[in-house]
Amino acid sequence: MKGNFIYSNPTKIYFGDDAQTNLATALAAFGKKVLLVYGGGSIKRNGIYDDVMKALADARKEVVELAGVMPNPTLDKLHEGCDVARRNDVDFILAVGGGSVIDYAKGVSVATWYDGDAWDNFWVQQHDPAADARIIPVGAVLTMAGTGSEMNGGSVITNTAAKMKLTKAFSDRVMPRFAIMNPRYTFSLPTYQLAAGIYDTFSHIMEQYFSGDDDSTSDYLAEGLMRSVIASSRVAVKDPKDYEARSNLMWSATWALNTLIGKGKRQDWMPHMIGKGISALTDATHGMTLSGIAVAYYRHIMPYGLPRFARFARNVWDIHCDGLSETQQAEAGIDALAAWIREIGAATDIASLGVTPDLIPAIADATILNGGGYKSLDRDDVVSILLASLPTN
Amino acid sequence: MKGNFIYSNPTKIYFGDDAQTNLATALAAFGKKVLLVYGGGSIKRNGIYDDVMKALADARKEVVELAGVMPNPTLDKLHEGCDVARRNDVDFILAVGGGSVIDYAKGVSVATWYDGDAWDNFWVQQHDPAADARIIPVGAVLTMAGTGSEMNGGSVITNTAAKMKLTKAFSDRVMPRFAIMNPRYTFSLPTYQLAAGIYDTFSHIMEQYFSGDDDSTSDYLAEGLMRSVIASSRVAVKDPKDYEARSNLMWSATWALNTLIGKGKRQDWMPHMIGKGISALTDATHGMTLSGIAVAYYRHIMPYGLPRFARFARNVWDIHCDGLSETQQAEAGIDALAAWIREIGAATDIASLGVTPDLIPAIADATILNGGGYKSLDRDDVVSILLASLPTN
Repeated sequence: MKGNFIYSNPTKIYFGDDAQTNLATALAAFGKKVLLVYGGGSIKRNGIYDDVMKALADARKEVVELAGVMPNPTLDKLHEGCDVARRNDVDFILAVGGGSVIDYAKGVSVATWYDGDAWDNFWVQQHDPAADARIIPVGAVLTMAGTGSEMNGGSVITNTAAKMKLTKAFSDRVMPRFAIMNPRYTFSLPTYQLAAGIYDTFSHIMEQYFSGDDDSTSDYLAEGLMRSVIASSRVAVKDPKDYEARSNLMWSATWALNTLIGKGKRQDWMPHMIGKGISALTDATHGMTLSGIAVAYYRHIMPYGLPRFARFARNVWDIHCDGLSETQQAEAGIDALAAWIREIGAATDIASLGVTPDLIPAIADATILNGGGYKSLDRDDVVSILLASLPTN
Repeated sequence: MKGNFIYSNPTKIYFGDDAQTNLATALAAFGKKVLLVYGGGSIKRNGIYDDVMKALADARKEVVELAGVMPNPTLDKLHEGCDVARRNDVDFILAVGGGSVIDYAKGVSVATWYDGDAWDNFWVQQHDPAADARIIPVGAVLTMAGTGSEMNGGSVITNTAAKMKLTKAFSDRVMPRFAIMNPRYTFSLPTYQLAAGIYDTFSHIMEQYFSGDDDSTSDYLAEGLMRSVIASSRVAVKDPKDYEARSNLMWSATWALNTLIGKGKRQDWMPHMIGKGISALTDATHGMTLSGIAVAYYRHIMPYGLPRFARFARNVWDIHCDGLSETQQAEAGIDALAAWIREIGAATDIASLGVTPDLIPAIADATILNGGGYKSLDRDDVVSILLASLPTN
């Protein structure tokens, strides 16, 4: 690797089929008043809510509940959470859910005691709260694998009025202080969400891997993670209650996006930019927006990064490349990716996600062009990729 | 992965060819009086000492120097360091060096204000200091890649009188608070030490990889790290000033032993046990004791873990295994390992390290049998492996 970097990731992870038994201990280091944040209430049906309330009682905490955090949490909901946190002067935020709920908790963490406009200053301007700014510490109980939010500083907030979905990567002060990760907590997830989470994880890895041309330890780690995700996904989609597979998927998702595999190297992130453009105009599930455009996107940039695509075929998909040209190797790798997307039940197109041809210009307008991948895309490239993604890839 | 675990690694890493420019900032969070710990004085010849003293001055610290930490730091030297730290009531320990110096600093960290006998209670009994016990925080400036001590709680201390070299893995309180990692700081290392560090790193990975039979993300990450070490080692031994290669080797060494790739799985560590037995009876360099016995050790346990050895051949060494039996694949993997040990200039036997046949019974006696690998070794196994390691493997 050639790049310089700082790596800091102090989140303490309690992982395993008894992970929740550590929750009361993990909470002990923090203040008395806890804001409990969760989503639509599925945690009340699958027993997770009861586990959490028991731990909160064991730790003698006062609990303020804030439910109803939606997938793609909105700026309006963020303001509501800040009001509740401020009014109750909470000492800690415990997020119980998937990436949306944890992202939301980090948003409330930084915005509650901030005087300025959180949207303009944090999300649009990409500022980080100052080192002495008051934030509220966050902890997480993870119920869905994929986003990696449990061990990073990322927070994605959607401004419905402005039709913008923006990501902020806050520094390590805003990362969850701890995360409770019990793979069994993900067993009751619908298979559609399972597939979306698997592909989200895989896309995080690819979007760090498909950029740069130096020899970097980060890329070898990325290859290892991709191989693990592929192996476990094939087991999990057939038997969602296979503990070993769900456990690997949960842990791989964490390491796919806790900054490690992007250290010291260029990164891409263009699929996430296009995916967020789609999400701003439709209700589509995040992971599916990524798989829906993946094959068209990677075919589009492949000529500009042939050696890396050939390496992907050999090292990730175990394709025997003797006698194949570099282009043939690269194509075989993308073919393998396409077949696997189909195999795990992720979206193979964007028409099925509600994208109609007339929406494409607006999606292209909502797509931020970041120039990180092997080809620096312009708006026409994005339109081409979206058009090529309408039918099944 | 099937196992439950806690992962916590708060060490903040400043990595790159300007990493030392962060040292004054990193020191700012700690108290005024710094114990500066280093080895034989090579840092005064290569300019690292001057960089460090400048940062200490910029951070307005009072400095107490403690030089002369030897490879395989001794209990006597530990007592000396504790006396100096206590007499000066230091607030922080800055270790500048390789694994021995950083291990030593952690030893002084926990032993200085401990009332009992550090050898009996920490190293022999494997106790951790209590959460409210006074320790002295440690930071590191790394000058040699291999041991991983810069991002873990490990400390290896040798009791010369008892002829025992023991490792303690302390909890995250004792891990370095930060580590400054500039790959250029390793350029002036003699090639013998470079090879020893490379093999030490590789052995750390193998000793976590060659145990257990579940499907585990940890093992895929281990394969990625091994591939990166192999690729970069081949460049570095030919051109020790290749920044990219030295940078990958430095970062891989950190992740080989900061607990990540062993999470949720069984681990082996028998080669390290035998290597420490050799070190207790000879002056041999640590990494060379591991490479000297590796081929004999792995041939000895191979029949008990055939599927993993075959996987090692395919996924780490890219051996085309079509038409080969599982045993043939496994043997091809060990052959590749043997050839690579020779290629990088690591020891291929233990006779060249000063081991004579008459020492073998005492080495076997000094070897702790931990039962972690594919075969649970007894003393006769150890003697067989040592005898088979005397001539070139």
